[in-house]
Amino acid sequence: MSTRLGNLKRLFAPRSVAVVGASPAEEKAGHQALRALATFRGDVYPVNPSAGEILGYRCYPSLRAIGRPVDLVLFAIPAAACVAAVEEAIACGCGGGVVFSGGFAETGDAGAEAQARLQELCERSGFRLLGPNTAGFYNKRIDLAACFAPGLDHIQRGSVAVVAQSGGVNLITSFLIDRLGYGAAFGVGLGNAVDIDAADVLEYLADDADTRAIALHLEGVRAGRKLYEALLRVTPRKPVAVFPVGRHDVGEFARSHTGNLIGSYALKAAALRQAGAVVVESTEELAAAAVALSLGRIAPRAQPGIGVLVGQAGAGLIVLDRLKAAGVSVPPLAPETVARIEQLLPPMTFVRNPVDTGRPGPTFPDVLAALAADEQIDAVAMFAINEPAAVRPEEVLPAARRTIAKPIVFGTMGPEARVRPTVEALRAHGILAMESPERLAHAAIALARDAAAQWRLARAPASTTARTAPQHASLPAKPDEHAAKTLLEAYGIATPRRAACSSVEEAREAFRALAKPVVVKILSAEIAHKTEAGGVVLNVADEAALEAALARLDRIPLAGARRYLIEEMAPAGLELIVGAVRDASFGPTVMVGIGGTAAEAIKDTAMRLAPVSAAEAQEMLGELRAAALLDGWRGAPPADREALAETIARLGQLLCEHPRIKEIEINPLRVYARGVLALDALIV
Amino acid sequence: MSTRLGNLKRLFAPRSVAVVGASPAEEKAGHQALRALATFRGDVYPVNPSAGEILGYRCYPSLRAIGRPVDLVLFAIPAAACVAAVEEAIACGCGGGVVFSGGFAETGDAGAEAQARLQELCERSGFRLLGPNTAGFYNKRIDLAACFAPGLDHIQRGSVAVVAQSGGVNLITSFLIDRLGYGAAFGVGLGNAVDIDAADVLEYLADDADTRAIALHLEGVRAGRKLYEALLRVTPRKPVAVFPVGRHDVGEFARSHTGNLIGSYALKAAALRQAGAVVVESTEELAAAAVALSLGRIAPRAQPGIGVLVGQAGAGLIVLDRLKAAGVSVPPLAPETVARIEQLLPPMTFVRNPVDTGRPGPTFPDVLAALAADEQIDAVAMFAINEPAAVRPEEVLPAARRTIAKPIVFGTMGPEARVRPTVEALRAHGILAMESPERLAHAAIALARDAAAQWRLARAPASTTARTAPQHASLPAKPDEHAAKTLLEAYGIATPRRAACSSVEEAREAFRALAKPVVVKILSAEIAHKTEAGGVVLNVADEAALEAALARLDRIPLAGARRYLIEEMAPAGLELIVGAVRDASFGPTVMVGIGGTAAEAIKDTAMRLAPVSAAEAQEMLGELRAAALLDGWRGAPPADREALAETIARLGQLLCEHPRIKEIEINPLRVYARGVLALDALIV
Repeated sequence: MSTRLGNLKRLFAPRSVAVVGASPAEEKAGHQALRALATFRGDVYPVNPSAGEILGYRCYPSLRAIGRPVDLVLFAIPAAACVAAVEEAIACGCGGGVVFSGGFAETGDAGAEAQARLQELCERSGFRLLGPNTAGFYNKRIDLAACFAPGLDHIQRGSVAVVAQSGGVNLITSFLIDRLGYGAAFGVGLGNAVDIDAADVLEYLADDADTRAIALHLEGVRAGRKLYEALLRVTPRKPVAVFPVGRHDVGEFARSHTGNLIGSYALKAAALRQAGAVVVESTEELAAAAVALSLGRIAPRAQPGIGVLVGQAGAGLIVLDRLKAAGVSVPPLAPETVARIEQLLPPMTFVRNPVDTGRPGPTFPDVLAALAADEQIDAVAMFAINEPAAVRPEEVLPAARRTIAKPIVFGTMGPEARVRPTVEALRAHGILAMESPERLAHAAIALARDAAAQWRLARAPASTTARTAPQHASLPAKPDEHAAKTLLEAYGIATPRRAACSSVEEAREAFRALAKPVVVKILSAEIAHKTEAGGVVLNVADEAALEAALARLDRIPLAGARRYLIEEMAPAGLELIVGAVRDASFGPTVMVGIGGTAAEAIKDTAMRLAPVSAAEAQEMLGELRAAALLDGWRGAPPADREALAETIARLGQLLCEHPRIKEIEINPLRVYARGVLALDALIV
Repeated sequence: MSTRLGNLKRLFAPRSVAVVGASPAEEKAGHQALRALATFRGDVYPVNPSAGEILGYRCYPSLRAIGRPVDLVLFAIPAAACVAAVEEAIACGCGGGVVFSGGFAETGDAGAEAQARLQELCERSGFRLLGPNTAGFYNKRIDLAACFAPGLDHIQRGSVAVVAQSGGVNLITSFLIDRLGYGAAFGVGLGNAVDIDAADVLEYLADDADTRAIALHLEGVRAGRKLYEALLRVTPRKPVAVFPVGRHDVGEFARSHTGNLIGSYALKAAALRQAGAVVVESTEELAAAAVALSLGRIAPRAQPGIGVLVGQAGAGLIVLDRLKAAGVSVPPLAPETVARIEQLLPPMTFVRNPVDTGRPGPTFPDVLAALAADEQIDAVAMFAINEPAAVRPEEVLPAARRTIAKPIVFGTMGPEARVRPTVEALRAHGILAMESPERLAHAAIALARDAAAQWRLARAPASTTARTAPQHASLPAKPDEHAAKTLLEAYGIATPRRAACSSVEEAREAFRALAKPVVVKILSAEIAHKTEAGGVVLNVADEAALEAALARLDRIPLAGARRYLIEEMAPAGLELIVGAVRDASFGPTVMVGIGGTAAEAIKDTAMRLAPVSAAEAQEMLGELRAAALLDGWRGAPPADREALAETIARLGQLLCEHPRIKEIEINPLRVYARGVLALDALIV
C-alpha cells in the first residue's frame, strides 16, 4: 500500500485523533469538534498551549508533546496558522488532517498562496488533508464525528456513504438519509479539496465493506477526467447517485465558496451519466436515490421496465407522469399478466400498467405477484394510502419479498403516527418505504437509470478506448479548411470533392474537373470567418462566374500566400453541427447540435466525453430536443442516423489522438438519407 | 342565497350527516365512513335496512325513516344503487351528498348514463353532489371527516384548504401539509365532479373565514374557462397554489380515473398562471407553497426580490440555483446595505446576495435586519444548519419579526429530535420553517411568483376584457387567404399589398400596379395547402414570368371558381407563427412560436387565454426558448417586440369577437426592426 493510500485510511478510520485549537469556549468550533469526539472509540488529544483540561480531556501544549504520531489531526485554528500546524503534524508522523477554517483560495491571492503551500506539503510528504474550508467527516463504524457541527451521533448506522463538495451539504444529505429511516455509513465534506478530492474518496469507498451506495454532491469540478475515470471503475461495483449544483448562473457565488469555477452544467451532468452515475437535482432526491440503490439494484438492462401498482388512481397518475417525464419505461403487460390480474380485480379497474386496484382488497398480494412475474417488469413501484382496513403493506410486502426477486419500492401517506409502524416494519425488512408519490417515483427512476447506465457501460466496446498515438494523418501547424477536411477524410468522414489551388490557372483546371455548380472559397489561415470576409462564392456554374468569383476573392487583402478552394456544391439536406472540444477539466469532449439560428438560440445540443462509441453517439441524437427532424420531418426522408453517429464517434477519436488540437468543429454537417457530408470544418 | 349555494354550504358545513350503506363489517367503506364521523359535532344517522346498531349508533332502514332532512348524505353503496338513493335524498329535502363509489363515466357507457342522470337530478333539484368516485372531504372547523379513509382526525386545524381532483391526492396533500407542522382547514376530493367542480369550491373557500391559502390539484379540466374566471376572482383575495398533473403522456390512464380528458398541459399551466395561481410540480411542493402563502404574501410587485442569507455556502448555492432556475430575482444589494453588512461580518464572506455569514456569530440578527431593510428585498430566505452554539433561530427570528414587516422564510436541517424544538417554536410564531434547502427555496419561489402574478393581474388594462359583439369586419362563410388577410387588416395587422383577381386580365392589371417582384397564388377555399398543390409562384418579376405563373396555376384542377392572388414580395426577416384557437375547455386562446422546422420540432411556443393585453403578449415572447433571436441575433437588428405583442393581442381580440372562428393562424408572420407583416393567414 502506498503511503498516500495508507495515510488516507489512517485519516478516515483513525485509532487516535488530536484537536489542534481545542477550546474551553463553548461557541468555538474547537470546542464543538472536541465535544463531537465523545462517542469515538479511540484516543483523543486536545492541543491547546494554555488550557489544562477541556471537557474532561487532558490538554497537550503541542502535537509534538503528545509523544506519538496520531492518525488524524483536526485543525480548529485560523487559516493563517494552518501551514505551520500542518508542517508540525507531518514532522510528528501524523497520517492526515482536517482543516475546518475558510480563508484560502476562495478569498484571494494570500489565501491561494497558503492553499498552494498546503498542497505542496501533502504532495511531498504523503500526509493527507481534508479541506480546507469544510465541516469535516464522520465514520459510523468507529462512531467518529470529526466535525464541529453537532448531531452526527444521532445518525443511525446504515449502508449509504455521502461525499459532498460542501461540508454543509454533507450534513444536510446525511441527516436527510437518516430521516428516511435507513441511516448512513460515512459522510465527508471536501471543501476546497486541496489534497483529497471526490475521486479519492470514491475509490476509498469502493473498497469499504459498510458502503452499499454512494451519494455524491458536486459544485465546480477541478479534475473532471480523474473523477470520470474513478466513477467508471466504481459504479459497476457500487451504485452512485450524484447531485451536481449549478445549472444556472451561480458562478460568482460558487467561486467565493470553494474557489473553484463552476463549469458547464451540461457537460458535467453528461460526463457523470456516461460514467454510470444517476444524476439527481436536489439533496432530497440525492438522499432518496442513494437509499433506494443501497437496498438493491436492477440488473443491467437497456430499458428497465417499472410496474406501477396503486390503490389510488390519483397517486398512480402522479407516479406515471413522473416516470414518463424521466423517460423511464412503464411497459404494457403481457396478455397473460393482464388476464391473470383481470381475474383478481373488479371489472372497472385499469389493469394495463399502471395497475389500479381501486380501494385495495384481499387479492392485493396476488395482483402484486402477477405484476412482478411479468417479463417486461424489472421492479415494482407500489403506492397505497394508509388504510389498514383495506391493505396491510407491512404484512403483504415482506411475504411478497420471499417469492419475488425483483426490487419492490413502496410509497404511502397518512398521519405520521399511524404510518410509522408500517414504514418501520418495512425498513426492518430492507424494503424501501417512501412517504409521498413523488418520492416513490423518484426511487423507481433511480433504480431504472442505474440499471440502464450499467447496461450501457457493460456493452461499450473496447474500440472506444482512447488511443494515445495518432493513427492517421498528422497535422500541419496552422490547419486551414482544406487541411481540416483532409484530416476528417483520414478518419472516414466524407467531405465534398474539391481542390486546393495556388493560382488562378490551377483554379480553372480544378473547375473543369469538378461537377458544376461549385463553391469558390478563399483559403488562408489568416481568415477565420470566410463568409463575413466575402471569401465564399456559392453556385458558380460557368467559367465566367468562376472568373468573377476569383476576381472577387483577389480583392480581399492578405499578408501571406493566397490560395483558392474549388469545391463541388452539396445537395440540400438537414444541417447539423458536430464538434469536439478539449475541456480544461474533463478533457476531450464531443457535441452535436441541430444547425440553424433557432436551434442555436435554444442551445439544442448533446454532449459526451470522448471517446464515444457509435451506439453512445446514437443516444446523443436521441437527446436533441429537435430529434424529430431526423425522423423525416414533413415528408423529408429520415436522416442517416448511423452515419451521423459514426461521424460523432470518429471526431471524438480524432480529438483524442491529436493532443495539439484544442477544438474541431464541422459546421454545417449535412445529413442525407444515406451518408453525411462535412461542408465546412474548423480546427483550433 | 340561491338553493344551490345554500345546499353547497349545508353539504360542506352540515349539522347532520347520514351514511347510506353503513356497515357492521370493518373492511367496508360504509363502516369506515361511519367510524370517521366519531369526532363530528353534529347528528349522525347510519342507514342500513338490516342492522340495528353500528358503532353505537342506532340504524335507520332508509333516509326517509330518519324523519328529518339531513344536511349531508354519504352514499357508501355500489354505483348501480346510487341514482335511486340520490332521488330519495332529494325527496327527503337533504342538502347534498357524497358518492364514494367508482363505476361511472370512467368505466364506459352504462356508467356514463348513470352519471348523466345524477347530474340532471342535481341541476333540477338544487341538491349538491360531491363525486362520484371520491374519498370525500373534511372540515376541521366542525371536526367533520366525510371520508372512508382513516386518519383525518390526526390533522391539526390550520389555515390551508385543499381542493383535489382526486380523493387520494386530497388525502396525500392534506397529510403532507399537516406534516409541515401547520395543519389544514378543509380538504376535498372532487372525483368525477358531476356537480361540484373546482371552481365551485374555490368560490366557496374565498368566503371561508378559516381559509388563508388554497392548494389545488388538477388532472383533466372539463370547464376550463369557468375555473379560470373563478381563479381570477379568488386569487387577489386568497393565494392559490396549483399542481396540474399530466405533463406527459398519461391520457389513457387519466381518462380511466375520472372520465375526463387530460388536455394540453401547456395550456392548462398557462391559464392557471394567467389567473394568478402559483403553479407547482408535486404534492410536496403544493403543500409547501400553500403553507408558505398562508403565512403571508409579498405585496404585488413586477419582480419581487429575494434576499438569501445563509450560514453554509453549500446550502446557499443550492437555494440560489433553484431561485435562478425559477426566474426569481435575487437582486444585488444597495451599496449602503453591503457597507453595513461588511461591518458586521469577517472580511472573507460573500456579502452581495446571497449573504454568506460563514459559521454564524452574534452579529447574525443585525445582518438579517440590514438585508431585510434593503429596498430591493421583498422577502428573506434564510438557511442555517442546526448549530445552537452558533445561532438560535428560535430566538433570532421571532425578535426580527417584530421589526421586519417583510416575509421571512427559514430553512434548516439536523437530527429530527434536535431540530424539532426550533421548528415548533418558529411555527408557533407563524414563521415558516422548512427542513431542506430546496423546500426553503420552493417557499421563496411561491411567494415571489404569487406577488408577480398579482402585480400582473392588477395592472391588466380593462381594454383586454372580451367584447362579445364583433366590432370589425364581418366574415364570409368560407374565408380564403384574401378574406383572412382583410379581416386581419381590420384589426390593424399589416399584410402585404395585394389584389384578388377573378381573371387573367385582372391579374395582369394588378401586376402592373404592384411593386415587383410579386408572388402569385391560387385563391380557392377548395385548396388548404397551396404550396403543396403547386399553387404558389414566388419571385415573379416581369410579365413573361407572370404569364407562366398564371398558366401553371390554371393547370391545378378545381371544381369551383378560380381566382388569383397577386401580392408584393415581403423583405426578408425573422419568421414567427401567431395563432388563436378556440379550446373546447378553456375557450379563446392565443399562441406564438418561432417559425422554421427546428423550432417547430421543439414546439417552442407560448400560450395564453384570450383576450391578452399587449403587455401580457410581451411576456409570452420572453417565454420562448429561442427568444434571443428577437434581440438581434448574430448582428441582425432587434425585432419589433411591441408590434409583435400588439399583433398577438389583436389576434386574440379577433377570436373573442368572432365566435364562429375556431382557429386563425398567421404563418409566417415576418418581423422587422419596425413592424410586422402577415405573409399567410388561415381561418378555420
